[in-house]
Amino acid sequence: MADAYEVNKDRLWSTLQFLGKIGQDKRGGVTRLSLTEPDMAARAYVEGLMKEAGLTVRRDEAGNLIGRLEGDRPGLPAVMTGSHIDTVVQAGIFDGALGVLGGIEALRTVKERGIRHRHPLEVVCFTDEEGVRFGVGYLGSRAMAGAWTGEWLDAADDRGITLREAFERAGLDPERIANARREKKTVKAYVELHIEQGRVLEERQAPIGMATAIYGHCWLRVTLKGRADHAGTTPMALRRDPAAAAAEALLAAERTALRYGGVATVGTMSLAPGAINVIPGEASFTVDLRHDDSATLQRMKRDLCGEIHAVCKRRRLEPVIDVLDEEAPVSCGPAVLEAIEQSCRASGIPVQALVCGAGHDAAAIRGLCEVGMILVRSRDGISHHPSEWSSPDDCAAGANVLLNALLKLANRT
Amino acid sequence: MADAYEVNKDRLWSTLQFLGKIGQDKRGGVTRLSLTEPDMAARAYVEGLMKEAGLTVRRDEAGNLIGRLEGDRPGLPAVMTGSHIDTVVQAGIFDGALGVLGGIEALRTVKERGIRHRHPLEVVCFTDEEGVRFGVGYLGSRAMAGAWTGEWLDAADDRGITLREAFERAGLDPERIANARREKKTVKAYVELHIEQGRVLEERQAPIGMATAIYGHCWLRVTLKGRADHAGTTPMALRRDPAAAAAEALLAAERTALRYGGVATVGTMSLAPGAINVIPGEASFTVDLRHDDSATLQRMKRDLCGEIHAVCKRRRLEPVIDVLDEEAPVSCGPAVLEAIEQSCRASGIPVQALVCGAGHDAAAIRGLCEVGMILVRSRDGISHHPSEWSSPDDCAAGANVLLNALLKLANRT
Repeated sequence: MADAYEVNKDRLWSTLQFLGKIGQDKRGGVTRLSLTEPDMAARAYVEGLMKEAGLTVRRDEAGNLIGRLEGDRPGLPAVMTGSHIDTVVQAGIFDGALGVLGGIEALRTVKERGIRHRHPLEVVCFTDEEGVRFGVGYLGSRAMAGAWTGEWLDAADDRGITLREAFERAGLDPERIANARREKKTVKAYVELHIEQGRVLEERQAPIGMATAIYGHCWLRVTLKGRADHAGTTPMALRRDPAAAAAEALLAAERTALRYGGVATVGTMSLAPGAINVIPGEASFTVDLRHDDSATLQRMKRDLCGEIHAVCKRRRLEPVIDVLDEEAPVSCGPAVLEAIEQSCRASGIPVQALVCGAGHDAAAIRGLCEVGMILVRSRDGISHHPSEWSSPDDCAAGANVLLNALLKLANRT
Repeated sequence: MADAYEVNKDRLWSTLQFLGKIGQDKRGGVTRLSLTEPDMAARAYVEGLMKEAGLTVRRDEAGNLIGRLEGDRPGLPAVMTGSHIDTVVQAGIFDGALGVLGGIEALRTVKERGIRHRHPLEVVCFTDEEGVRFGVGYLGSRAMAGAWTGEWLDAADDRGITLREAFERAGLDPERIANARREKKTVKAYVELHIEQGRVLEERQAPIGMATAIYGHCWLRVTLKGRADHAGTTPMALRRDPAAAAAEALLAAERTALRYGGVATVGTMSLAPGAINVIPGEASFTVDLRHDDSATLQRMKRDLCGEIHAVCKRRRLEPVIDVLDEEAPVSCGPAVLEAIEQSCRASGIPVQALVCGAGHDAAAIRGLCEVGMILVRSRDGISHHPSEWSSPDDCAAGANVLLNALLKLANRT
């Protein structure tokens, strides 16, 4: 275990607990919607921590907080880590927070122990990853990667406050957000520490995972139009029943995922008119397809759409398939993977490769540099819920792997 | 075509048109919810028609209007026809009305032509067949068959008016409804004329059908509990997805219907929590199973429940299956079937046997005597909708078959 540095486990845990109290929701959990008062209070806390850690702190045009530790050779591109501290409604205290606080703790450890590193190190607290408040997420990381678009400014929250107004209230100039864009030559690599939000590591009894890729997704809305009819007087042979076709489509989606090794989910389904004794005239459902390979994801979509059309032809139905959202998978970078793998080994943690199923700021940052993710075991796979939990040991193990991976990347030529 | 009497087609059609104007709904169609003002106005019209036809009219304790024509031997049990004139919201003008007006027209023809018949003939306009207003239907026919229960009196409509109050406002004594019960020895047979409300006759290009049975039904509510999970981070193998099991159950219901020759319908389905990127934790749906044989209907239910349990075991889900409603099939009586068949032949109408898929007053009256149904072709199978339609020729053909069938039954020894 030579060459394996360790963070201050208790300090990391106490910052997680402290941050988790900012924006506590009376109904349970924590609610820090982006750019709201609790989020701003949490940012102030994070900014203080960065300064306490001895980092140079700046806020960029998109509101991203960036803490920086210069390396031995200041002109080199930075090795970056980060995540977010905005949350969904009634969230847990780990999602996002672990990456920001673990990153600060890692850099603080580097600083206080005087560990040398050639490239500068940066930790970023990104603006609005969750996208819950304005319906569009990864705002800060997209802006940094040069993917900002001014159209988002008109999006409004539940109370009619636009993103433009929210940025202004936070003291930011909505017209200058695109300036948060970083030049590619200023960033060498990005490693994000995050809770798994799934049960794969728990099933494998492993504390830490190394994402080899982040799933891309394809979201479909499928509407099948048939003919509403009397459930008693319409023989099976005369039916044009979209519910039966939806059932076939759902099972086809499942088979597609099993065939290609991705995942497929039907999370919503409605039948109209929706009465016990009426054959539906319309069935509407969504499909969430994910895969870590771009071409395979397209193949899943094509196969499924083909099956839906074939079922509809056989059942005399009219299908309408809309693509609601699509995002390509991210392959994690080889240098980052190597650094994470070596760090796990150095800390005596078995290397557990898995595909990251959730979206993260890392997916946006891929436009800037090679990226990777260190995942921490989630109890029972629960996330976006007050009972979200990762143990102090697992959190510290993740931060240790992050610390050593950042140093390895920062010392590679 | 000896021995085939004919009703007055134009007179029948004009009464259908007239009744169809009582309770016209501004939004389209006709709305005569039971015991409301439009229904009471329609009853007054029907009572007037019965009197005009020369029938002896009485209103029984359940509000059923009964028009009677004595036969040659007054002490014999009556041969009865009937139906209802209450409607659903924005209904068509044929459902129920054709049976009442066709029955009156048939008896009027017997009376004005002085056609002799041994048994008395009766036509009944039953109270509240649809069950839309108070959530329970076949009130009049059930009361006549001795199946009245006082519990129904507390059921209330949308405006909080109870069935008890509605009966009182109609001048009826809620405590005496059970007295509408007829002795079995007073009724010989019941034949109901009704629109098909399906597309079987249209597909066969036949104007008239003879129901050999009325479907029984079994209504199930199925709730499958699994585990809500993140659609991205939960591999297929770790899922407990009730939506996929619901899809299998739906297709199993369809196969069950095809195997046994009945019908099965899933008309409602909901997934909770219901988000595109969340694996549902619970799926809930209804199943409407129908068959014309009682034992087979039970077998369909047993098979389906067995399949649902097997699917849930395989997918690690917990199923809850509730029987919401169950009604045994009705086999039409041999004497009634013979009379209808002979009447069709006598009128030169091909005999089209089919199973009646919808519920009717006839199903309630089976407790009293043998029953049968004459079905009239429905355009495009549409019913419970303003565009419900049966042609003047088809309506008259149905009334002719009814007339001759009633006479055959009334003259059988």
